[in-house]
Amino acid sequence: MKKNKKVNAAILIIGNEILSGRTQDRNISFIANWLNSKCGISLKEVRIIPDKEKVIINNVSEMSKKFNYVFTTGGIGPTHDDITAQSISKAFKVKYEYHIEAFAILENYYGKSKFNEGRRKMAKMPRGAKLIYNPSSAAPGFVTKNVFSLPGVPSILNSMIENCKRYLIKGLIVHSKTLNVLTVESNISKQLGLIQKKYKKNVDIGSYPFFRLGRIGVSIVSRSTSKIKLEKVNQDLIELVRLKKIKIIRI
Amino acid sequence: MKKNKKVNAAILIIGNEILSGRTQDRNISFIANWLNSKCGISLKEVRIIPDKEKVIINNVSEMSKKFNYVFTTGGIGPTHDDITAQSISKAFKVKYEYHIEAFAILENYYGKSKFNEGRRKMAKMPRGAKLIYNPSSAAPGFVTKNVFSLPGVPSILNSMIENCKRYLIKGLIVHSKTLNVLTVESNISKQLGLIQKKYKKNVDIGSYPFFRLGRIGVSIVSRSTSKIKLEKVNQDLIELVRLKKIKIIRI
Repeated sequence: MKKNKKVNAAILIIGNEILSGRTQDRNISFIANWLNSKCGISLKEVRIIPDKEKVIINNVSEMSKKFNYVFTTGGIGPTHDDITAQSISKAFKVKYEYHIEAFAILENYYGKSKFNEGRRKMAKMPRGAKLIYNPSSAAPGFVTKNVFSLPGVPSILNSMIENCKRYLIKGLIVHSKTLNVLTVESNISKQLGLIQKKYKKNVDIGSYPFFRLGRIGVSIVSRSTSKIKLEKVNQDLIELVRLKKIKIIRI
Repeated sequence: MKKNKKVNAAILIIGNEILSGRTQDRNISFIANWLNSKCGISLKEVRIIPDKEKVIINNVSEMSKKFNYVFTTGGIGPTHDDITAQSISKAFKVKYEYHIEAFAILENYYGKSKFNEGRRKMAKMPRGAKLIYNPSSAAPGFVTKNVFSLPGVPSILNSMIENCKRYLIKGLIVHSKTLNVLTVESNISKQLGLIQKKYKKNVDIGSYPFFRLGRIGVSIVSRSTSKIKLEKVNQDLIELVRLKKIKIIRI
């Protein structure tokens, strides 16, 4: 597969515990980094929604049409509030049933006598799903059409992510360059805007203020699939800060 | 205003830096906790989107119709990638113009001679916007219809959040109770499902596995606007773990 395509993805976080504020999400930045740096897949949108069947169905339907890939996290465990698999089945109008290989994996992991109802539930998936193997706690994730379903527990999700790769078409890797300068945004905003205009087709320039160790500064982050263009932007930025007598620092 | 209403909200995080994985969001759980515990407003959805005008317009339009309140974060600074205010103006088809009071606040803060183009940009807002005062760095947030626009820098956002209160109608506070037990989810999933069924109208029960200090356990979190119902669920849960001989712990 040639790596010259623009490929995008979205994340759908399913979980009341994030919306209530009880749990701080840690999966978004992990998946975002992995997609961008390892797969050349650009993350275009994230949604966090409650464990409600209708809401899950609507979002899965909408997002799977809009993006090349959708990654869901959460709701694939053994309890009553784990309803991701049945909701995705309904979204794609396919049967929700035991996946033979997943059933075998789980039965083998727990042993026949301890393979109770809750555990068996984790083998039920949308018909035709492909498995995402789980090296840390056995229960597999699954791929339904272009939707990848992973668990919500970050350590388990992290251990599974590489197993998604076989099902993904990769795109062009986006490179980035960061310049940290000791000034305030409004001192360089006009010139930054002009540089962005000059390279608007190839490079995205972002400006992020920081306050660290008593120092006020700005991180200027340039992102592009072209390393050459990125270097050109960097030269323009260095020229800008030189003219303005602004100090560059490493952080 | 009587506090007997169900009031909901959504958050719209505007920022390429979150989607690229460069920055770990810290605003979602802060706003979620504040809305739930201080305002009795239930957070129903979060979206993270890029700094693209069309995408911002579409999401603001859709979400402002769907929820009682929408909180946006990010994109209200002085640089070219700060386009929240003009995008919201377009979403609501109102003029994007200098807000007289915001202009005066910023001019006074920076001093006439240092009030440059970038800084003046932060006084431009959708016509008719109401200000959210900013005690840490002067530049105000603003309310356009039911949409509250706040900055992306967490420390500044945190200092401003109380100033949103005057514009909000409060709802019933949702209380929560957590029981941490030393077992695995699949050992209690069936019984938990039955308890959830019994109280399905009044209480939401969530089950979250934890792995901490070498111990495997489950946090059972019950949430309800009724403290009495919450206590009843708690008694049922304690009876369940007693029968199963499961240990309760504090974490």
